[in-house]
Amino acid sequence: MIAFADARAFLAALDGLPSPSAAATAAAKERQAELTKPGGSLGQLEDLAIFMAGWQDTPRPRVDRVKAVVFAGNHGVAARGVSAFPVEVTAQMVANFAAGGAAINVLARTCGAELSVVPLDLDRPTGDIAQEPAMTEAECLAALNAGAGVVTSDTQLLLVGEMGIGNTTPAAAICAAAFEGNAGQWCGRGSGVDSAGLARKIDAVEQALALHRADCRDPFETLRRLGGREIAAMAGAMLAARLLRLPVLLDGFIACAAIAPLVARQPEFTSHCIAAHCSAEGAHRLLLERFELEPLLDLGLRLGEGSGAALAVPLVRAALATHNEMATFAEAAVTSGG
Amino acid sequence: MIAFADARAFLAALDGLPSPSAAATAAAKERQAELTKPGGSLGQLEDLAIFMAGWQDTPRPRVDRVKAVVFAGNHGVAARGVSAFPVEVTAQMVANFAAGGAAINVLARTCGAELSVVPLDLDRPTGDIAQEPAMTEAECLAALNAGAGVVTSDTQLLLVGEMGIGNTTPAAAICAAAFEGNAGQWCGRGSGVDSAGLARKIDAVEQALALHRADCRDPFETLRRLGGREIAAMAGAMLAARLLRLPVLLDGFIACAAIAPLVARQPEFTSHCIAAHCSAEGAHRLLLERFELEPLLDLGLRLGEGSGAALAVPLVRAALATHNEMATFAEAAVTSGG
Repeated sequence: MIAFADARAFLAALDGLPSPSAAATAAAKERQAELTKPGGSLGQLEDLAIFMAGWQDTPRPRVDRVKAVVFAGNHGVAARGVSAFPVEVTAQMVANFAAGGAAINVLARTCGAELSVVPLDLDRPTGDIAQEPAMTEAECLAALNAGAGVVTSDTQLLLVGEMGIGNTTPAAAICAAAFEGNAGQWCGRGSGVDSAGLARKIDAVEQALALHRADCRDPFETLRRLGGREIAAMAGAMLAARLLRLPVLLDGFIACAAIAPLVARQPEFTSHCIAAHCSAEGAHRLLLERFELEPLLDLGLRLGEGSGAALAVPLVRAALATHNEMATFAEAAVTSGG
Repeated sequence: MIAFADARAFLAALDGLPSPSAAATAAAKERQAELTKPGGSLGQLEDLAIFMAGWQDTPRPRVDRVKAVVFAGNHGVAARGVSAFPVEVTAQMVANFAAGGAAINVLARTCGAELSVVPLDLDRPTGDIAQEPAMTEAECLAALNAGAGVVTSDTQLLLVGEMGIGNTTPAAAICAAAFEGNAGQWCGRGSGVDSAGLARKIDAVEQALALHRADCRDPFETLRRLGGREIAAMAGAMLAARLLRLPVLLDGFIACAAIAPLVARQPEFTSHCIAAHCSAEGAHRLLLERFELEPLLDLGLRLGEGSGAALAVPLVRAALATHNEMATFAEAAVTSGG
């Protein structure tokens, strides 16, 4: 199990990331060229199979054990009216997750992922980022480790999602701090806030940036000052996955924002990540462009919870099934193209 | 079972298409608004659930029985060197389908679809469209009915695919006849033909259009003169599905080209169709624009066989699972947005 002793250990881990296996990558590419189909005709499915081979260090990768983790947190900034929903909905939705009635319950079941839900101090919202840091150092470290701790090496594909009323506001602030740009560029309507709410959101992000930007000198400080518990937990989980060489299916804007400071410091951080989808939140596309990732799906989702990541699991399964189970030209006595 | 007595009966069926249930559509929309998520946050998944409800005439649609049919045919025009593969590959791939080694075998298994493969007179290629009509009236009617005949009313979702070396050439000719435009606009590299092959392909389509365009006065004549057996069979299957009110997941360029003449005559023909994906063949995007359909996937596929349609099945399943299994705001005691 991965745990970071302190902020320095977290940053050191980020500066020493493992890489996929070049030999397994090459072997998987070779196999793809032998399967009974025109070369390249399965498009991104071929890339997925080769990607999984590299990270699993085998020419025949598998996805039998898929894990979905949803982190939940509450945000001081939510009191500013930046969301379409009242703050008590975070806890209500955690109860809904426990009862099995939310979208991610159904989608995890449908795609064969084991679902864990990790509520993080819901009755203790983070500080209002427009006025103070979201967390103390100890709180941020605890959140990072709450995320890292759920990642186990027997998982073959990790999905990371979130629930937290108001959390597109800290997510936008993190993106602006990590990648520059103004508040308006990174703020959208989230789960459906009206124009007045959007204006309050942009205002909150502008205040937060004015207060914290100069101090966001590393990813830990950015997450601590501008983030939230579920956001830091997602970053911790996705970094732990990398250290264990486990592929991650990236969900929506907030999950991607959680790693934005990591990518800003270490541009190849996302090389163990698959962009599951591009959401309806405009800033998500901007982030994916920064990450240089092409999303598998673009379905106008804006739910979070890891829902978009779960929807992409069957594509990874299909990629590996074709890779492992199709006949080769030689096996099937099919003439290959010239 | 649907069968067309003659060309007139085929055209009459096309001119009297059934519509989805307005009541079931409205009831499904109402249910979507009550589920524990921000309204609209499941994007195209919500549209899929409502679409399926309308065609199945129930507010709680299901996809337990999914059928994939792959039609195979050979083409006289293939002798002109318009493909990267020799013509014997059609029969070799049909043997590969029978042995279970092709991509569609694996993908149908993975998505839970029952697969049928229908080879159509492979040892009797159609006429070379650059010189003569592809089929006689009797041959075209037989092919349409071979397609219509496999569609049974117990199917809840139909996937239609094809295999036929050289068949992007007749597909391009059909599109040009149905929707105008020149040969170059509708021709691409198909399964990967080189530049010289592409030039031969454009040339063949130009000759075919010069010879037949004026006589393509209805969809039957367009399919007969410019099509192929598997292309006409796909058109017959998708029309039969509509008559039985069964939703169809559209595959790639050739499957879409098969219904282009039907859409040109009857623009709302595709209202029982879901565009599963947009392929790497440039003309496929043009066709989907003509059909006014937004594809679910865009993965750079260019394989055919119904592979793209099979990859979209889990999205339909996920759409119906969330629609049917999620808790409502009232059931979960979650506060709805304001």
